[in-house]
Amino acid sequence: MGTLKVGVVGTGAIGQEHIARITNKLVGAAVVAITDVNDANAKKAAALCGARVEKDSAGVVNAPDVDAVLVCSWGPAHAESVLQAIAAGKPVFCEKPLATTAKDCKKIVDAEVACGKQLVQVGFMRRYDKGYLQMKELIDSGEFGEPLLVHCAHRNAEVGESYVTPMAVYDTAIHEIDTLQWLVGDDYVTAQVITGKDTKHSHAKLRDPQMMILRTKGGITIDIEVFVNCKFGYDIECEVCCEEGIIKMPEPNFPTVRKDMNRSVYIEQDWKRRFSGAYDVEIQEWINSTLKGEVNGPTAWDGYTAAVTADALVKSQETGGIEPITTGERPSFYK
Amino acid sequence: MGTLKVGVVGTGAIGQEHIARITNKLVGAAVVAITDVNDANAKKAAALCGARVEKDSAGVVNAPDVDAVLVCSWGPAHAESVLQAIAAGKPVFCEKPLATTAKDCKKIVDAEVACGKQLVQVGFMRRYDKGYLQMKELIDSGEFGEPLLVHCAHRNAEVGESYVTPMAVYDTAIHEIDTLQWLVGDDYVTAQVITGKDTKHSHAKLRDPQMMILRTKGGITIDIEVFVNCKFGYDIECEVCCEEGIIKMPEPNFPTVRKDMNRSVYIEQDWKRRFSGAYDVEIQEWINSTLKGEVNGPTAWDGYTAAVTADALVKSQETGGIEPITTGERPSFYK
Amino acid sequence: MGTLKVGVVGTGAIGQEHIARITNKLVGAAVVAITDVNDANAKKAAALCGARVEKDSAGVVNAPDVDAVLVCSWGPAHAESVLQAIAAGKPVFCEKPLATTAKDCKKIVDAEVACGKQLVQVGFMRRYDKGYLQMKELIDSGEFGEPLLVHCAHRNAEVGESYVTPMAVYDTAIHEIDTLQWLVGDDYVTAQVITGKDTKHSHAKLRDPQMMILRTKGGITIDIEVFVNCKFGYDIECEVCCEEGIIKMPEPNFPTVRKDMNRSVYIEQDWKRRFSGAYDVEIQEWINSTLKGEVNGPTAWDGYTAAVTADALVKSQETGGIEPITTGERPSFYK
Amino acid sequence: MGTLKVGVVGTGAIGQEHIARITNKLVGAAVVAITDVNDANAKKAAALCGARVEKDSAGVVNAPDVDAVLVCSWGPAHAESVLQAIAAGKPVFCEKPLATTAKDCKKIVDAEVACGKQLVQVGFMRRYDKGYLQMKELIDSGEFGEPLLVHCAHRNAEVGESYVTPMAVYDTAIHEIDTLQWLVGDDYVTAQVITGKDTKHSHAKLRDPQMMILRTKGGITIDIEVFVNCKFGYDIECEVCCEEGIIKMPEPNFPTVRKDMNRSVYIEQDWKRRFSGAYDVEIQEWINSTLKGEVNGPTAWDGYTAAVTADALVKSQETGGIEPITTGERPSFYK
Repeated sequence: MGTLKVGVVGTGAIGQEHIARITNKLVGAAVVAITDVNDANAKKAAALCGARVEKDSAGVVNAPDVDAVLVCSWGPAHAESVLQAIAAGKPVFCEKPLATTAKDCKKIVDAEVACGKQLVQVGFMRRYDKGYLQMKELIDSGEFGEPLLVHCAHRNAEVGESYVTPMAVYDTAIHEIDTLQWLVGDDYVTAQVITGKDTKHSHAKLRDPQMMILRTKGGITIDIEVFVNCKFGYDIECEVCCEEGIIKMPEPNFPTVRKDMNRSVYIEQDWKRRFSGAYDVEIQEWINSTLKGEVNGPTAWDGYTAAVTADALVKSQETGGIEPITTGERPSFYK
Repeated sequence: MGTLKVGVVGTGAIGQEHIARITNKLVGAAVVAITDVNDANAKKAAALCGARVEKDSAGVVNAPDVDAVLVCSWGPAHAESVLQAIAAGKPVFCEKPLATTAKDCKKIVDAEVACGKQLVQVGFMRRYDKGYLQMKELIDSGEFGEPLLVHCAHRNAEVGESYVTPMAVYDTAIHEIDTLQWLVGDDYVTAQVITGKDTKHSHAKLRDPQMMILRTKGGITIDIEVFVNCKFGYDIECEVCCEEGIIKMPEPNFPTVRKDMNRSVYIEQDWKRRFSGAYDVEIQEWINSTLKGEVNGPTAWDGYTAAVTADALVKSQETGGIEPITTGERPSFYK
Repeated sequence: MGTLKVGVVGTGAIGQEHIARITNKLVGAAVVAITDVNDANAKKAAALCGARVEKDSAGVVNAPDVDAVLVCSWGPAHAESVLQAIAAGKPVFCEKPLATTAKDCKKIVDAEVACGKQLVQVGFMRRYDKGYLQMKELIDSGEFGEPLLVHCAHRNAEVGESYVTPMAVYDTAIHEIDTLQWLVGDDYVTAQVITGKDTKHSHAKLRDPQMMILRTKGGITIDIEVFVNCKFGYDIECEVCCEEGIIKMPEPNFPTVRKDMNRSVYIEQDWKRRFSGAYDVEIQEWINSTLKGEVNGPTAWDGYTAAVTADALVKSQETGGIEPITTGERPSFYK
Repeated sequence: MGTLKVGVVGTGAIGQEHIARITNKLVGAAVVAITDVNDANAKKAAALCGARVEKDSAGVVNAPDVDAVLVCSWGPAHAESVLQAIAAGKPVFCEKPLATTAKDCKKIVDAEVACGKQLVQVGFMRRYDKGYLQMKELIDSGEFGEPLLVHCAHRNAEVGESYVTPMAVYDTAIHEIDTLQWLVGDDYVTAQVITGKDTKHSHAKLRDPQMMILRTKGGITIDIEVFVNCKFGYDIECEVCCEEGIIKMPEPNFPTVRKDMNRSVYIEQDWKRRFSGAYDVEIQEWINSTLKGEVNGPTAWDGYTAAVTADALVKSQETGGIEPITTGERPSFYK
């Protein structure tokens, strides 16, 4: 099918990783053009993959030899690059968030709908994780009947002082927000956050842990424990209660050890390692589907509804109440 | 220490079981007097344990040779027998509920406080279950820091047509209501119930499953999934998230079987078998502490607060809102 | 059914425990007579249960008010007491070993056969452990087809300097020897012990770990890892591979804990706690069946074949070869 | 580092898979020349990867543009191609077995030693499986002390009529033979196979299950259950008992499901899926190390000792005895 020539906007941590991934690990694509607000960083990244440096996002997006764009700049710059790609009619993979405001996400949705062709994929990599895919397959098999409840936990060993209460939504639960609506195939209608006793390992500007509750149009109740100073590791749990049975995501695989009076399994400590396989599959599938002229991953609409849902959760952090999630009807374009 | 001579009021299913337990399995007690609204049943039960039949509750309670009373009649009759025992100054074990209204529970509390001596124990047997006791021991060890969140599930394979929405609180979650406040050592302040999509295995008068949320004075958030038509078995889960780690109750023990393409463990189907060990320990400990002149189990105050909490949950089933739980201050008598 | 009046020979550790068990925990029996080579010990034990002291084993066995005898003296004295009981026509429970030599075991078997009535039960308590019973029930259900292989492990955290190589058979594997033939319902024909690299935690007179292999008449192969300085706890494993699937004994129940980068379950450290439930059931069932005039537990024949099998394993420890186990045909008396 | 130009000898099932793997999934290599005894098959495979067809193994091996050779022909043809590659001084990856006789394996070892440079890697892919690698890392960390015992199981749901007794060694246990000596870093000295009761699902020419016992120079005892009609799935177990604790390989990851009265995890049914990740890593690492001029995987010596060990196990299947494994000293070339 030929090689997909990719232009990369942004060479921070995740940008560098994706460039390395495409260059050394995946097949079917090559990075040909790179830009970064820091020119030296761009040059360094370009040297490693044999790409040239362009002076800005527009330069990368509009370069005639760039088939598709990978946006890895910082969040506030995402919308501009994605809109440029839509204007140029080029497929674009945008790391999360699609944009830092629901309004900007909506602008992207509108632009994509206006252009009449799906071009945008958002970087929600969990949908490509083996465990979630196994659960999805079981749910979709119909053998378990309808999903009714979902119990989740998103735990980090610890976070720094700069991590404050709303980040529990925007940086942490954002993954569950996207993954769960995809997993159960339903849209959210209300959001609620319950805070209470904080762990002594937190600080003044962070309520930790938090219980988040999302409810869907179809009546599914989802609870998400977000606990970012749990001390013991990076720990993601997901359990779906259905009419005929319950499905629980497997734990990451490590040997069972009998030692020191315990039978123990190590808990992953690093979120990157936890989902490294998912990142590989995500980008490989993006390359493959882009080469076929398709978008199969999370859409701009998913990026937009995630933003609206996150805003409602943050509002509930402030009000303590049950907040509505109003996204408007899903355009037929995204069905 | 001699033998505790027990009078039993009520010889329905649980009454018969307790009589058999005291007679054939436990040590230190003997049933000497029995009554039941159905005289034939009382006679049958009496024959099996060599006790005599009294004509009513007062007859049992006030019989000179009765050292302590076991109340196993139907719920609406509990309060009268317990109040008789307090009036007689005799220790009394009352099966749950202590009384069918919070008001009657309060009347018992007031009578016991007035009499100046603790006499009442309520039949919340889960506190005597090995798994809960192991969790309690770990929490109380201090090694895990403060408890912050509790996740629970109470699942039954199925219930009959007569089981309606409020029974999810009064008959099912009532066990968690008592056990959890004991487990984390805190009092409840608000109650919330979330219903949504119902399983197709439920019926018109039963919302199933339900998510119940209790919050404590100290800020602990507790969520309880009540799912009484889960189809797969009787399944009790409890997980306590603390500042230094998470403690999860063990599953009942059955062999792991590799067969038919699965590695499986049987799930208990019968709630009586699930907690049969707890019932034995509960009654044996009641006998032992009563012989020592002590009350060590769930108190009348616990029975009263459970009733108030249950009422708040049922109110939330109706309003959909977050309801306050107002029990008044715990009397120093019960501290 | 009345009360079984028990005479106890030997008041060492296990003797004291059984006396306490019968007196304070179990129902249907009372200890009425006691003897011990150390008279002071006998008096102390007698005081706790209200029994009288007899001057020797014969005094206990032949006392007119003694219905049944419990032999808890040291191993070399077992045979004498058991033979006295058979001579007196009284039921006798003998702690393991039945006798310290296969020859003495055979003498007991012959005496019992000659007397024409089953009287002897040997204290192999594992058959009363819930996990083994659950496995037995599954095997006997026929759903798994015939058992073909059994994998076992018997691990202790550590043993003292006085524990030497043959004790890995006589004190440790002896439990598996009895339990496994009962579990699979077959008799042993050969024994093999493989020693090799020893743990640095062992000492000069103890080969540790050892792999023991027993084969049955029906062709079942059983491997037993005996590892008595495994350091991490008291750990008993048993897995039976059958034609349609594999059955593995459950691990003892403790909470699952997420802490310190691990998901852990505590391992039992104390063999007494591991099998305390089994001891209770064993003695209660002995009381119950003795009151009914039956022997339902491990027989003198089981005690004899265990002794012969143990001798063959010890011989293999010395020769390194595969040793025959020759017990002769099981008398119809014991079928 | 440039692209490794690979010549492939043999385009049966595994050959086709490796060709697809190199072409579509891995990086750093391209298949340039292909041969097969069936010319049509060779042409079909060549078309899919853009390679040319050579008329025989020598044609592939000696083609000037072939940097390295991948031998996937049937077993009896392996030795010839590997010897051709050594003669040509080209790196060669040979699927297992290295050769069908120990003698031919030894010929390859001698040729490689004579040529003075390591060129041969044997396709024992299990060493690249994540679970084994995790175990190896723990063992090599030293935290567990010395390995003393290894318990393994290799189970297939079922095999066809053409699978006969020696294949339990040559086709099945051969994987354990290689992996375990690598895992514990020791050489085998004796082999023993125990057969007994056969499953009714076997046939006249297949003893099933079999217990195989290997002992190492250092005194480690390894038992391997081979059970190829276990009915329930493809199931690989490995547990290493060390001086300070025990390490058990994780089970493949699938969701835990509560349904139909059981808590179950699916068991993998397909050996290819079980080790597909290992195959990818194996070939990628072979490409990477070959590009660096190194051989890091299983060597010709490993292929030879596996053959000698397998022969000793098969001899024990016939004799029922403990057979010596005599490979001679490991040449310093392979240390």
